[in-house]
Amino acid sequence: MHPPRPDRPHRKRRADGERSREAILREAAKLATVEGLDGLSIARLAEAVGMSKSGLFAHFGSKEELQLATIETARALFDELVVAPAAEATTPLERLRQLTENYLRYVDGTFPGGCFFASLVPEVDTRPGPVRDAALSFMADWLGELETTVRDAQRADELDEREDAQQLVFEIEASLFLGNALWVAGHGSTALDRARHAIERRLAAAAV
Amino acid sequence: MHPPRPDRPHRKRRADGERSREAILREAAKLATVEGLDGLSIARLAEAVGMSKSGLFAHFGSKEELQLATIETARALFDELVVAPAAEATTPLERLRQLTENYLRYVDGTFPGGCFFASLVPEVDTRPGPVRDAALSFMADWLGELETTVRDAQRADELDEREDAQQLVFEIEASLFLGNALWVAGHGSTALDRARHAIERRLAAAAV
Repeated sequence: MHPPRPDRPHRKRRADGERSREAILREAAKLATVEGLDGLSIARLAEAVGMSKSGLFAHFGSKEELQLATIETARALFDELVVAPAAEATTPLERLRQLTENYLRYVDGTFPGGCFFASLVPEVDTRPGPVRDAALSFMADWLGELETTVRDAQRADELDEREDAQQLVFEIEASLFLGNALWVAGHGSTALDRARHAIERRLAAAAV
Repeated sequence: MHPPRPDRPHRKRRADGERSREAILREAAKLATVEGLDGLSIARLAEAVGMSKSGLFAHFGSKEELQLATIETARALFDELVVAPAAEATTPLERLRQLTENYLRYVDGTFPGGCFFASLVPEVDTRPGPVRDAALSFMADWLGELETTVRDAQRADELDEREDAQQLVFEIEASLFLGNALWVAGHGSTALDRARHAIERRLAAAAV
């Protein structure tokens, strides 16, 4: 997904450090979807990536710093796989469909534990602090992204203006959220197809 | 919810032990919805209930035994608050509505971290073992309960027989699952009302 970019010689050292940090954080995100973000100690990550604890301490000073950097990496990946590709849609409704479809593909092909944030939010939502703030801020932004798109589709007369945009977003996100949970629980692509079907049906009912 | 029952004198000693075990396990379930089931060590629980670790070891020999007993207690409570009261419904569709409404009330009034199982499943679904088995078995039984009720409503001509029962159950559960998650994340009763509204609308569309 991120092939090494050619770097100018005098930048090589720093670029290597950056790539290494990114590779470590992707491994951390993967691990977090399986063992929970709280299981993500520097010791556990060192074992997973085959580095020394002191080597990892050079990158991240504390467990919390590591957790926050991991969330940031997972968020950038989410934007890259789910949000950015939908920018090419030609209408708001098409963009909404692409956002949901991209999400379901991201669930199936990115992390062993499904959506990083769907496993993160239930883990941290009862524990105040910067990690919870980062998780909830992602959630709010994602719901906001869907809501903006729904409102755009309403203004473009693709969706009925009498639909409550937040209610519609709730119903779309509900299918994505349960689709992910059942996929992780072993229901496989059936769960994602149920989500697709529910969203298609709901959007058809909301069409003008 | 469980007032002390009058016990015959010669049973008193054992009944006290049972009540005490039950009280400890309810505290454990409460703690698990906030700190995760994995945070539920005997040491942490001893601190929360004000007992000695050795006192708790007399009840539960290991962390896993404690976790499994906690799941069992949470399950009995779920049956008592959500499933059992719906038995009084006079038709299958009424029973379906009661199951979902009871669930939403249980989310709001039972544990600080919302539905015990909605926080349990994402935590353990990637970790094979008896705890994951117990969580997924609960999930399968709950979805099965909803599906049986939907099929009964179809046979009673209350819901359209052409509806795919499992798809309908997916959509109902999706609203319950996200309603709970957003309630825990601080959206309060708005989240539960969105779930209510989505389910009511979906059942109306599926009505004969």
